[in-house]
Amino acid sequence: MTSPIEQQADRPESFPLERFDEWFDDRVRRHRFRIDPIPFDELRQWEFAPTTGNLVHASGKFFSIEGLSVETNWGSIRQWNQPIINQPEIGYLGMLAKSIGGVLHFLMQAKMEPGNIRCIQLAPTLQATKSNYTRVHHGKTPLYLDLFRNRRRDQVLVDSLQSEQGSRFLRKRNRNMVILLDEQQDVPPHPDFLWLTLRQIRELLRRDNVINMDARTVLACLPESATGNRSSADGLSYPATADPAASSSAHAGGCDEVDPGDLAKILAWVTELKCDFELRAERIPLRRAEPWEITKDRIAHPSGDHFEVIAVRVEADNREVTSWTQPILKPCHEGLVAFVTRERHGRTELLVQAKVEAGNFDVIELAPTIQCLSADYRSAEVSRRYPFADYVLAARPEQKLHDTRQSEEGGRFFREENRNMVVRADADFPHDLPRNFSWVPYRLLKSLLMHSNIVNVQARCLLNAVPSNAAPWCGATSGVAR
Amino acid sequence: MTSPIEQQADRPESFPLERFDEWFDDRVRRHRFRIDPIPFDELRQWEFAPTTGNLVHASGKFFSIEGLSVETNWGSIRQWNQPIINQPEIGYLGMLAKSIGGVLHFLMQAKMEPGNIRCIQLAPTLQATKSNYTRVHHGKTPLYLDLFRNRRRDQVLVDSLQSEQGSRFLRKRNRNMVILLDEQQDVPPHPDFLWLTLRQIRELLRRDNVINMDARTVLACLPESATGNRSSADGLSYPATADPAASSSAHAGGCDEVDPGDLAKILAWVTELKCDFELRAERIPLRRAEPWEITKDRIAHPSGDHFEVIAVRVEADNREVTSWTQPILKPCHEGLVAFVTRERHGRTELLVQAKVEAGNFDVIELAPTIQCLSADYRSAEVSRRYPFADYVLAARPEQKLHDTRQSEEGGRFFREENRNMVVRADADFPHDLPRNFSWVPYRLLKSLLMHSNIVNVQARCLLNAVPSNAAPWCGATSGVAR
Repeated sequence: MTSPIEQQADRPESFPLERFDEWFDDRVRRHRFRIDPIPFDELRQWEFAPTTGNLVHASGKFFSIEGLSVETNWGSIRQWNQPIINQPEIGYLGMLAKSIGGVLHFLMQAKMEPGNIRCIQLAPTLQATKSNYTRVHHGKTPLYLDLFRNRRRDQVLVDSLQSEQGSRFLRKRNRNMVILLDEQQDVPPHPDFLWLTLRQIRELLRRDNVINMDARTVLACLPESATGNRSSADGLSYPATADPAASSSAHAGGCDEVDPGDLAKILAWVTELKCDFELRAERIPLRRAEPWEITKDRIAHPSGDHFEVIAVRVEADNREVTSWTQPILKPCHEGLVAFVTRERHGRTELLVQAKVEAGNFDVIELAPTIQCLSADYRSAEVSRRYPFADYVLAARPEQKLHDTRQSEEGGRFFREENRNMVVRADADFPHDLPRNFSWVPYRLLKSLLMHSNIVNVQARCLLNAVPSNAAPWCGATSGVAR
Repeated sequence: MTSPIEQQADRPESFPLERFDEWFDDRVRRHRFRIDPIPFDELRQWEFAPTTGNLVHASGKFFSIEGLSVETNWGSIRQWNQPIINQPEIGYLGMLAKSIGGVLHFLMQAKMEPGNIRCIQLAPTLQATKSNYTRVHHGKTPLYLDLFRNRRRDQVLVDSLQSEQGSRFLRKRNRNMVILLDEQQDVPPHPDFLWLTLRQIRELLRRDNVINMDARTVLACLPESATGNRSSADGLSYPATADPAASSSAHAGGCDEVDPGDLAKILAWVTELKCDFELRAERIPLRRAEPWEITKDRIAHPSGDHFEVIAVRVEADNREVTSWTQPILKPCHEGLVAFVTRERHGRTELLVQAKVEAGNFDVIELAPTIQCLSADYRSAEVSRRYPFADYVLAARPEQKLHDTRQSEEGGRFFREENRNMVVRADADFPHDLPRNFSWVPYRLLKSLLMHSNIVNVQARCLLNAVPSNAAPWCGATSGVAR
């Protein structure tokens, strides 16, 4: 039995955002969801492996918490040990898209994750590890999986391997996918799913903790040509033709064009830094990851910074299995991720940082101007260590283009909430930059998301919040009708 | 004391290709170069490490020969062991470029390598491992190194990390660089170095074993805009301005433009294959790499296929040190690398293969249509295993756009000579392709060379031999004056 608001939700062309809270609260009410921190010895099917002390699942699947010994010539700390999540399998983060009434819509899922601050957030249509979809835990097959598996090649708007948090995952990547359904292709409705336009999603992104990290990274990967900066007909036809000539002409003068000279310069700068910065990350037994201390209910750094590994018991009713226990990372502080932007030659540019993180696949990835997740940015002593943090925190209201709190992935991170900011540089912004910082045109950065392991997850997610002349409809004061 | 031909060689604007042989033979004569296979126990400073049996250098630098255990779901053989070269350090393959008389010239080096068939080949200006340029072996500092180290950012035409042979190196990468000198910037002349135009270099590429592998991969990375497909003024100014607007306008309508829809399709196809194909490559002790057999003078596979590891003594006078011994890989057969091409919608397209190789950095890279290096392609039994090999080998003369023998890197490979072919598909070429094959526009493939680890070394090197409508001046019958 479905409620009236549910019925309206799966007829997306008529779903008004004013009714979103009603629908969302209904989802929250209908899903019992209880989460309790527990000591490690109450974990079921998880154990500290006898020889290594690594925290592993009995199946050998899912993920494990291991130790990592890191050496680098980047930054002020040159050697350290830390716990790291090892999850070698590639999961799907998949979004179904569809033209409804000539406007692109995305099928969002109200999804519970144990780490979510509000229990439920809006996730992509499909969010599944290989363990999920090969049914290692004997749960239900994820909804809509077949629409991704049986896609035609010309339905693929996005398909790229993208990194997750490099300071916490060992070379983890997810497959970010967007599949454009045919207009006549119906999907079976489900009360936890909702078709929303990009404009509606961006509106919700201006609230705290509504759009989850997985949805943010997938949406960031959408090419500009599909996101409404051109006529919707163009966006929707992309790349619906397999004919190169037709495709060429459809894109002539299109807004995905990136100056090859700019691109070459940025990639050469990345090469230079990859050669100059060394990163040696070696897996070690968790119990040798000193000075981290393992107690009965947490693995923590004596400084009180970084994160803790804890364990939780989860009881829910709309997950693939109805109850489980798992380890999860609990950050010790609210973090700060921020882009500084400017306008140059009629284009929006972002100040990007090339950042070495322990679990990076290839030494560095491009990160936001500020990415402070391991210490408390509100402390003056800490913010001084992060270039431009003081500038961003002292921004005047009219410089703040975006200022919200957003969660990281609730399946691995416990109630993590980071301040997300986009701040416009004013005339007194420093001209000289540290050598691992560079201004990068917004469109160029977007175009790099077709490639793997160039732009890190914090930068990808925050890109959705950048009001750009390439995407005026996402600006706070934009009046573009959509 | 320099000879007249030497004096002419370092005044490049006047160097006529007709005198190349004279200059080259002079180089060969002036460099005594003697190479003898020796048993392993005559290696100096190299030894089989006691616990692993790996063949290592006493300094711990240079490279080592180790074992690799490989598992994959790609191809007909799913598990094997093999020796592999482990050379974790990134070396320079650097080319100096300069506008002379309005035409781009490149400073080529007549360089001896122990594995070279003709002793000497034309190499890039700088070809140096980190061990070379940090002088681990106490030799001379490589010539012209400082011009690369002290480059300005606006002089960089190419700077990317590119893979080497994935079946023989473990995730090895070199830094491919081209630096555009200022017109007034003189370089000290040296009799082993010669300024040549791209047109002259391509002419020499139509001979066997003249242009070495390192020069071929660096030249392949040159953006189209710098290679003469536009006015030379454009090519030479690229990317000489740091101003994005100026750069934008300089490139408007430029020939580096790639259709973003085509690019997205190719990259999505690569993602799909990276997710479907698994590659687990684990380092193991060389002595456990069964069924490979280690005898006093070779490490070989009992089938007689693949390659052997042997040892050589080298005596020469213009290397950084004057004599040395080293292990080297000796292939068991002449190999075949070939591109099939076609013209579509006024563009040249290449038939590209996504190939899993044991030492790949990220599962697959794009390879030529045919890459057969481990068995004898001239055997009908072998060629049947390689899609399109029979087609290429039966090509009519007018389909053969290129057919030469080219060497692989003479520092690591002993007298390796592979047949390089470019064959134009005719109307009866198969329409259906294996799923890991795709037609890719020439310009798109070229543009991917700005990125790392997408196009493999065989494909990069062979790209120089593809007569393309994007580069008509390299065609065999082209009459374009340059």
